[in-house]
Amino acid sequence: MFGVTILGNNSALPAYNRHPTAQVITLNNHLFLVDCGEGTQMQMSLYKIKRSRIHHIFISHLHGDHYFGLPGLLTSYGLMSRTQELHLYAPSALKEILDFILNVSATTLPYELIFHPLENSSLLIDENDFSVESFEVFHRIDCWGFLFREKRKLRKINADVTAAYNIPVDSFERLKNGEDFIQNDGTIVPNNVLTIANKPSRAYAFAADTIYNENVAAIVKHADVLYHEATYLKEKTDKAASRFHSTSEQAARIAKLAHVKKLLIGHFSSTYEVLDDFLVEAKEIFPNTQLALEGQTFIIN
Amino acid sequence: MFGVTILGNNSALPAYNRHPTAQVITLNNHLFLVDCGEGTQMQMSLYKIKRSRIHHIFISHLHGDHYFGLPGLLTSYGLMSRTQELHLYAPSALKEILDFILNVSATTLPYELIFHPLENSSLLIDENDFSVESFEVFHRIDCWGFLFREKRKLRKINADVTAAYNIPVDSFERLKNGEDFIQNDGTIVPNNVLTIANKPSRAYAFAADTIYNENVAAIVKHADVLYHEATYLKEKTDKAASRFHSTSEQAARIAKLAHVKKLLIGHFSSTYEVLDDFLVEAKEIFPNTQLALEGQTFIIN
Repeated sequence: MFGVTILGNNSALPAYNRHPTAQVITLNNHLFLVDCGEGTQMQMSLYKIKRSRIHHIFISHLHGDHYFGLPGLLTSYGLMSRTQELHLYAPSALKEILDFILNVSATTLPYELIFHPLENSSLLIDENDFSVESFEVFHRIDCWGFLFREKRKLRKINADVTAAYNIPVDSFERLKNGEDFIQNDGTIVPNNVLTIANKPSRAYAFAADTIYNENVAAIVKHADVLYHEATYLKEKTDKAASRFHSTSEQAARIAKLAHVKKLLIGHFSSTYEVLDDFLVEAKEIFPNTQLALEGQTFIIN
Repeated sequence: MFGVTILGNNSALPAYNRHPTAQVITLNNHLFLVDCGEGTQMQMSLYKIKRSRIHHIFISHLHGDHYFGLPGLLTSYGLMSRTQELHLYAPSALKEILDFILNVSATTLPYELIFHPLENSSLLIDENDFSVESFEVFHRIDCWGFLFREKRKLRKINADVTAAYNIPVDSFERLKNGEDFIQNDGTIVPNNVLTIANKPSRAYAFAADTIYNENVAAIVKHADVLYHEATYLKEKTDKAASRFHSTSEQAARIAKLAHVKKLLIGHFSSTYEVLDDFLVEAKEIFPNTQLALEGQTFIIN
């Protein structure tokens, strides 16, 4: 399972029961929280997110609609007697804010909160089965996107063929990694005869809050699913630019340039009660677009 | 109209769709916000509170469940282009937190936020028609209760009697203030012949988070409505004390000692899904008790 569940899809001013930005990414048995707007812990309860399984939280930038729910979530973890360590990736000033808040409330968290300041585009996590990278986007203050990748999957052994060639089991790991097999007489059995390609690895890109910038497309190239903000419709292209935000049309243009498979749009301005036009506008340029609706889980495949 | 609308009645860990502490007090045409737990601005939308009419916010203490909704509310006011000044009464460290948060987000509020640090029990506001006092309660960190009083109402002119005595209109203000009238021949017409008593002034006391302490009863004596926290049932009296909280029974004992007219209880622990026992327990000692249920408005009279 690789998917993203939307907990908040609105821009800064909550409206029409839409909430500020928060998403939970599920990758195999890992849960990641990306951004944590006010009310995220309540949204987690509503949508049955197993919050105790989250060990990594990523905060894109320090506009409040992307992190004002974090102090509450962190203290709630404490009240729930969490002991497992929690990794937080965020702009460095957030550590000072959290330290100050915990200090004035005389609170000591019963778990270790490990803070990783976001500084340059970099590989944040590199595990056996997944990796997470940060990348710079273009907003009014420092802002980061995140790229979640499944690790390259090993090829599968074609058991009938390996039996026919009488290939010893202790060679299988090398075959899965793509090596050819050299027989005792020196002849080579090509890897693609002995193994079958696995499903390709998948990637999810969260492009945070950003003005239209084609560098984003270069970075998220070929992602399976791209989340790109679409705060306004194209009728407000100038306003979008002045606030370092994007329109729905611009999000679609990035998706098209990047050759992603699917585009999710969100961070809708409270100006708009009905969201249909966002979808119409984006689909004209990039047909496989969906609205990042709250409570919905989008499978990445 | 003098009433209190409950926006959040749960203790720190949100549960069962109950929210952290927040209340809106309406007094004539004034709206006051007391505490501002995470999600308060969404609760305001849900319960149709006219947030733009709030000019005074009171924060009892710096445990997050009493103010983590404040940064979001203040920035939302900015996004709504508020220009009217806003008075904030809170422990002094909150100013540092807010300044830091606004600074890292490069946000300048378009309205004046006037910060009043809470230091000693004192008269915070003294207007013609109402006053607000802070008083110390007894919690793990510095914590304040608030007493909202209607100002003493003037007596009403008994028009038939003043006409019969031929009393000039320019004496009416003095009569309303309770003075007797001295006729030209030196005889005195007693005030209570010429005027009628108005309804008595009313008071609402918000006792914040506190351990059982009879000093609170002395301070809130004769309030029309007392809100007192009741985090636990009496079966957890020891736990309540160890966390500087109260039980439902203890809240009722304070209400009885203080001779208030009505008791509201709230700040329920997330241990309890059903709240019926809180009411049963309190009513044994103080029959006129009600649960501070979210969305409900309690008239103070």
